Amino acid sequence: MTPAELQALIRTVPDFPAPGVQFRDITTLIAHGDGLKASVAHLAAHARDAGAQAIAGMEARGFIFGAAVAIELGVGFVPVRKPGKLPVETIGIDYALEYGVDRLEMDPKAVAQGQRVVLVDDLIATGGTACAAAKLLRQAGAIVDHAAFVIDLPDLGGAKRLAEIGVSVSALMDFAGE
Amino acid sequence: MTPAELQALIRTVPDFPAPGVQFRDITTLIAHGDGLKASVAHLAAHARDAGAQAIAGMEARGFIFGAAVAIELGVGFVPVRKPGKLPVETIGIDYALEYGVDRLEMDPKAVAQGQRVVLVDDLIATGGTACAAAKLLRQAGAIVDHAAFVIDLPDLGGAKRLAEIGVSVSALMDFAGE
Repeated sequence: MTPAELQALIRTVPDFPAPGVQFRDITTLIAHGDGLKASVAHLAAHARDAGAQAIAGMEARGFIFGAAVAIELGVGFVPVRKPGKLPVETIGIDYALEYGVDRLEMDPKAVAQGQRVVLVDDLIATGGTACAAAKLLRQAGAIVDHAAFVIDLPDLGGAKRLAEIGVSVSALMDFAGE
Repeated sequence: MTPAELQALIRTVPDFPAPGVQFRDITTLIAHGDGLKASVAHLAAHARDAGAQAIAGMEARGFIFGAAVAIELGVGFVPVRKPGKLPVETIGIDYALEYGVDRLEMDPKAVAQGQRVVLVDDLIATGGTACAAAKLLRQAGAIVDHAAFVIDLPDLGGAKRLAEIGVSVSALMDFAGE
């Protein structure tokens, strides 16, 4: 399936999670066997081109695509988690949300020094979570210079924000004008 | 890799999340490219034998294995989520934890009536979450008669509890005596 065919499988939910927001929902894409498989194949091609030696995914939707991309490439998967989930000593990073602060954590031993890790997630909006994840993986010793998404919302500037910290972005589709 | 080789990749963390608990951690298994791939291949074989027409995974670690199993079988993936995550009208189920109550939610349109859905998760302990997920999927119209796990802790009785509601269990490995 082409990216345009995959885009037709995305469900748009108005006013979620806040009034005026058009939520781009991947539930309908992943419920479709061919859509799920093709999405991961496209993401894996981007990650392979970027020289991925491991894939990192952000909890929770990043786990859906990230682990499957890792399997397609035959590399390991590094979960970047919400606080308190990992049973070992973690490293963490706080980052700003529109209202308040959130935090990501990882096992610092989950990546090797100098290992090239590609970030995978379902969607990039402002890029705040992805920026934080890239910085955290670098703190653990990884090289992070590419992030692959299913959906880009280019008007929210996430790709520019990632470019500023040296991370290029690929996406299977974008929804502009929002 | 054989299940015994995969079991050697599991990290055991004592006293997490509570004193006396031996936490069986899959982080080290999924960081290993061959280990991740082989785990999913074994799970997919179990799900295929059970006639899976879709795979459901529980947030969040169930997403890591579940979506990859769905791709291996060429079927869709149904995320069973924590409350408030899905942008559409959901159905939900409350279930008891050792202390307190938790809740799972799903999009009732994510499964077709009479579709056979196999549950996938990393670990079965008491089986409370898996029982709740099976009931919720049935409420949406799915047939649920098998659940496939990476790890079974048989002394905690999860497989028996699932059998009581007509769900058979397979696992790649077990840790007994706890």
